Parts: sequence; C-alpha cells; structure tokens
Amino acid sequence: MSAPPRPLGPDHDGLIGTLLHLVRSEPTSTRASLTERSGMGRTIVTQRVNELIETGLLAETGHGKSTGGRAPREVRFRREAACVLGIEVGATSIDVALTDLAGRPLGCHEESWDIARGPDATLDRIDTVIDRLLAVHQPRTVPLVGIGMGLPGPVEFATGTPVAPPIMPGWDGYPVRDRLASRHGVGVWVDNDVNVMALGELRAGTAVGVRDFLYVKVGTGIGAGLVSDGRLHRGTGGCAGDIGHIAVVGGAPQPCRCGKRGCLEALAGGAALARDALAHAENGSSSYLAALVEDQGPALTASDVAAGARAGDHVCVGLLRTAGEQIGRTLAGLINFFNPSLVVIGGGVALSGDLLLASIRHSVYALSLPLATRTLRVEMSGLSSQAGMVGAAFTAIDELLAPRQLSAWTHRLTREPVPRAATA
Amino acid sequence: MSAPPRPLGPDHDGLIGTLLHLVRSEPTSTRASLTERSGMGRTIVTQRVNELIETGLLAETGHGKSTGGRAPREVRFRREAACVLGIEVGATSIDVALTDLAGRPLGCHEESWDIARGPDATLDRIDTVIDRLLAVHQPRTVPLVGIGMGLPGPVEFATGTPVAPPIMPGWDGYPVRDRLASRHGVGVWVDNDVNVMALGELRAGTAVGVRDFLYVKVGTGIGAGLVSDGRLHRGTGGCAGDIGHIAVVGGAPQPCRCGKRGCLEALAGGAALARDALAHAENGSSSYLAALVEDQGPALTASDVAAGARAGDHVCVGLLRTAGEQIGRTLAGLINFFNPSLVVIGGGVALSGDLLLASIRHSVYALSLPLATRTLRVEMSGLSSQAGMVGAAFTAIDELLAPRQLSAWTHRLTREPVPRAATA
Repeated sequence: MSAPPRPLGPDHDGLIGTLLHLVRSEPTSTRASLTERSGMGRTIVTQRVNELIETGLLAETGHGKSTGGRAPREVRFRREAACVLGIEVGATSIDVALTDLAGRPLGCHEESWDIARGPDATLDRIDTVIDRLLAVHQPRTVPLVGIGMGLPGPVEFATGTPVAPPIMPGWDGYPVRDRLASRHGVGVWVDNDVNVMALGELRAGTAVGVRDFLYVKVGTGIGAGLVSDGRLHRGTGGCAGDIGHIAVVGGAPQPCRCGKRGCLEALAGGAALARDALAHAENGSSSYLAALVEDQGPALTASDVAAGARAGDHVCVGLLRTAGEQIGRTLAGLINFFNPSLVVIGGGVALSGDLLLASIRHSVYALSLPLATRTLRVEMSGLSSQAGMVGAAFTAIDELLAPRQLSAWTHRLTREPVPRAATA
Repeated sequence: MSAPPRPLGPDHDGLIGTLLHLVRSEPTSTRASLTERSGMGRTIVTQRVNELIETGLLAETGHGKSTGGRAPREVRFRREAACVLGIEVGATSIDVALTDLAGRPLGCHEESWDIARGPDATLDRIDTVIDRLLAVHQPRTVPLVGIGMGLPGPVEFATGTPVAPPIMPGWDGYPVRDRLASRHGVGVWVDNDVNVMALGELRAGTAVGVRDFLYVKVGTGIGAGLVSDGRLHRGTGGCAGDIGHIAVVGGAPQPCRCGKRGCLEALAGGAALARDALAHAENGSSSYLAALVEDQGPALTASDVAAGARAGDHVCVGLLRTAGEQIGRTLAGLINFFNPSLVVIGGGVALSGDLLLASIRHSVYALSLPLATRTLRVEMSGLSSQAGMVGAAFTAIDELLAPRQLSAWTHRLTREPVPRAATA
C-alpha cells in the first residue's frame, strides 16, 4: 500500500486549479501535453501534477505513445476518488443522486414530496434519504466530499438561503446550507433549480462545450438559467432567469399568482395548461378531456394535456401549440437580448412530447432577428429528468475543484483502486 | 537618464497581469500591500513588480507610511506612459479622443459625418483626424500603443469586422480592424458602440465597481450593452443587446425598419419620436411643433421634442412620457431575466432631458418583479456624450493590459517624467 495521500497546499496562483481543469477535460494527459496546453513551464507542471497525484485526485495510468524516446507516463482524473450528493427539490418531489466526481450516478432515489411541508420536515426527510443512499451505494473507501442542492425558488448562492421564494412557504431565509453542512460534515452549495439544471446541461448534457446558452424549464412554472461565456449568470440577487412573469405580447390578460396579468407563466406554464384543459372539459369542446374528468375527477394536469395530444385530441394539440407559441414569442426577445448559440428546453411539460418544442422553435425562428438566429439551435434537454440531480452534483463538484477552493481541499482520499459502482 | 525600458517577458501564469490590475485599482501601492492583496509570495511580487517597473508601466513614487521599520517604497501605475485612441463612429458623427492609459482625454475631436458614405471614405477621414490629433496632443516621448473603436452595428469582436449592420451600407464584412492596424502600426480592437459605451461606464462612469448591469442607449435606435460579473457579455455572434426589435406588450403595430411591426425602436426610438412629432405638427394638435415646422421645415428630430417638452408643450411631454413607458415596459422583462443591480440610460434622446428617465423608472419599478428591483438603480449615464470615446479607449486599454496580452507587450515606453497634458 502506498503512503497516505496528502492534502493540497495553498493554490494562490491558481496553477493547480488550471492543471486540474485541463486533466478533467480529457480522458488522459501527459506532463508534456499539459505543458503545451497550459503554457506553463515544464518544471512547474511536473511539480504541481505530482502534488495532485499526492492528494489522490490524479493517478498515473501506464504509458502514452512514444514520440521517439521513452514513452511518457499518462495521468488521468480519478473521478472515483470521492463522491458527492446532488439533491433536486421540486414543488412536489425530492430527487437525490450519489455521484462520482464526474457527476456519474452511483445510486439515485426519487420520491413525491410536497415542499409546502416546510424546511424542517423536508430536510429531515432528505437526511433520511441521504443516509440510506450512502449506506447502500457509497464505496467503503470513498469519502463523501460535498453536497449540491437545487431549490424551486430564488436562492442567495453565497449563503445558501432561499430569498422570498413564492411557492415555498416557510423557507424564506431558512439556513438550508448550514443545516445540511452541520448534519453531514461536508461543504454544501445551494442554488436555484433552473441554474442547477443549466449547469447539468453545461457539464454533462446538451450544452457541453457551449459558451453562451439558455436553459428553459417548462414545468408548473417557467424559468430560465443563463450561461455567459461558460459561467452561470446568477444576477445581482440570484434571481436572474425569472422569465415566468414577463408579460407576453398579444397574450390574454390571465391573472397570475404574482398579482399581475398576462404573464408567460399564467398563459403557458403547466398550471395554466391544466386550468385551460379543465375549462375545455367543462364546456364540452374536448370530449377527450371531458371523459377524463368524468373518469378521474377535475384535477387535470399538463401531463393529461400531453397525453391527449399524443392521442390526437385537437384541443390538447391546440393548447400545447399555443403554449409553445407564447413561450417562443417571449424567448424571441430574450434571444435578441442575450444572443445565445443554444436554447435547451427542459422541465416536465416540455419533456412530455415533441409538440411544444416544435411550436417554440417555430415562434423563435419567426420572431427573433435573423442575426441572432443565424447559428442558434433550440434543443430538448439531453439529461431530461436527471438534469436537476446531475446539475446539483456539479454545483458541488465545480466549487470543490475550483482554484479558489482547492487550497481548502483537505479531504483524505484513498489512492487504492476503487471498484466503480454501476448506476442504480 | 536611466536605462531604456525592457519589453515584458511571457506572462503565462498571469501573475504580472494580476499585479498590474491591483496596482491600477489604487492610487498607490507598496510591495507589502500587493503581497497581501494578491495572496502571492513576497519574492514573486517583488520580482514581477520590478519587471513592470522595467517596462515603464509602473513607477516608484517615494515612500509610504512606515509601520515601524524603514518606510516602504510606493509604486503607482504610470497612466501617462503611453496613449491610446478611442474612436466612436455614430450614424451621423465621428468622435475621437486621445487618452492616457487611464482613459483620461489628452485631446478630443468631434464632427458630423454620414456613416452611409461607406468604410473607405469614413476611415480616410478618421485617419486624417487621428494624424491631426496626434500632431497636436501626443506628448513627444509618449508612444501610441493601441486604438479602440465603436461602430453602430453588430461587430465580430475577434476579427474587428462589421456583421450585417443594418444602418451601415457598404460596411458588411469590411476589415476595419486590419485597415486601421496597418495604417497606424498598433493593436486595434473594434466593437459594437453600445458595448463600448457600457465598458466606458464600467471603467470610468456610473457603473464603476458594479458586477451586473445594463447600459441602454436611446438614440435614433435603441440598443443595450450587458455586463455579467464585471465582463461584457457580447453573445455568440457579437449581437447581444439588440433590444430595439423586441415587440412591445400593448404597443401600436407601427412598421419597423427590420420588417416587423410594433418593435420597441419603431415606438420609442429617436426616429419614432421625430415621426410622431411631425404627425402632431401636421394635424395641429401641437401648436409648438406646427410653428417649428413652419419655421425650419418638416425635418423634426428627437431633440426638437425634448426642447418642446422643456418649453412646456404638452404633446412633446406626452411623446417622451409614452416613449419612456414603452422602454420601461420592455426593460421590466429584461430585468426579470438578467437581474442587474444597475441600469444606465444614455444616448442622445435620453440625455436631452429628465422626463424620459423618470418615465422609464416609473414603468420599470411598476412592472418588474419586486425581488429583481429590490436593490436596482436606474441612472442617467455619468459619461454622457463622452461614453463612446472613453469606452472605445478602454476597449483598447483593457485588451492591452489583459494578462493574455501582456506577453505581447513590446512597446518601448519612456521612464522619464512626462508632462500631463490638459483635457482639450
């Protein structure tokens, strides 16, 4: 057995962080390739790579191709060296994943939960889920080093506390981060759920390698995550991306829960679709929806509308098409403003069928400036319903491995080979 | 006389750039204060500061306060060591400033010019203006080290070429940067005019020290510059901030030059104000405007409307108030989306009076989400009509002094004292 790994020293100049980032972005590297890609001196690269190997974050993996002389040693990022938890709390669900340092799930747990039960009951439940997940899926020698969490409302990222969240009664100002950190003894980072999903798409989904993009979640509500030059744009109060309460051009003056009328969410969110579906069931314009209400009662959902559209009900098709048009109309202006190269559409309503995406695309391309759509792609989320959990894991991973955090890296990793657990 | 200054070596690790940034942000520093602020080792700081003194970019300035032992030597940024040109080309004007490395004008030239005369004639004219400005205002021993330029249309920043600019016939794809660089023998950076103005406000205007803000130019057209976490967000195609063609909620379906109807610019830009003013002059609803047309002909401008409002004409007051309301209505949605802490309003129409600002503020605070406006300020441009020239100068200065550029810094600066020229 080799000597125990050493914690990293200070990384004031950011060189270790830079090298770690380069190693993480390729399957394998050599000291020579890192010297070339980083522009640093050979001696410094060798020294810092050796420090990273000492910590257990990098490993040597045999030899690369020789270019004449002795074949160079290859190094790789040991994504199996530690694990993190990614927690996504929705309005009606808790999803938790235990992942490695590359965001790959070792085990997952998903369940229904009403966030209105408040922070104490919700975090108690999450503690229980975490304990069970770790007991089953955490490899014996692999430490838990961090927790990332997404919440369905504005969060002050620096402190990890919700700020006046509209659909989370009892959560305003609650010290979510501090409570999780003291219970589990690791660093915790909490962010808005849509930011977390955008980060997931950036690191492991549809937006890998993209510098400027928007993630748009169409669920019960509607929200966006902004990525500017490869980094999340959280805004001054952490509430950037709140597009659900932008007034829609030419939209009906439907009352919105925010107190105004004609907001995007009040016209095209999941709750709005459910409301309109019920109206169509009651006035008899859709026999499909009327039969559904007769069968299961008046509690229709956006999923019912999507199922109706797939079954060919023309009212459901029309509802989704109109919702997509309103979303696309709003996005058209935001695309002129932000000039992304990619818009990723996710969230429960969007994921329930292709019709909404088609309709959003149609409006976006018709109404944005030609220059802003010249290279624009509008795509469905690649991570689908896992975007939240995976993104939450990266919310922790990115912070743990950022240059400014590395000097605080005192986790004692094993350098022994670790069995890679299968995805649950 | 001291030895001639030496060019900088490579700054691969960015330490010189970091130190230079710290020195620039304070009137004076000591090696000890830089060690503390940078978190670097004392030896490295001393060595890199000495390298910067060798280049002539820093100077020692006597002694700071002693904290017991020998008083430490102070260093400061030699903003007088070199000069740059900031060029702002508008639809109908050319403004050129010669500035020091802190963006302070040594001399300025402003003249009327029609950009539709095309790139060759325009750049010929700019060459003449530059030659004259340098002949009069450039101190004998101070080299010109760079040129920054703002153009009223989308620009691909990496190449310095306009991309399909709507109001610049003949400029599409013209190699503006390369032509200026080969004629004047220095580095040239070209950007969209609104980005340039936003940068000016960030470095030397109303937005100094602000991380997330919007600059909104209300001139003949309407455009925005976005700053995310202290950096310009240019977007994928360099056309971020194109808010003039966002459809306004509840707005009249006025035809716009982009081919659509109801765009913000077609309702609230300077050209729209002039159009509406003429209509009011002709239908007799404003005797003030009717008298103006009788006096000077039908070519009314937004400035005439602003003058009319100041003179108490209620139609002019109403036109500006309505324009401000439409701009504020559009900004309200963008503020929900981007969550800035500051919106800076500039451009000729905005600067012509307080009424437009008051009306924009009214709409923004009424229509944005409370969370997004909790700490939001909406302010008039501090740099006023100089924002373009000063911002263009910083477009060059920021690039010249950026860590990735410093290794290319081979300008031979004098280390002799240079007389500081007064502002022209």
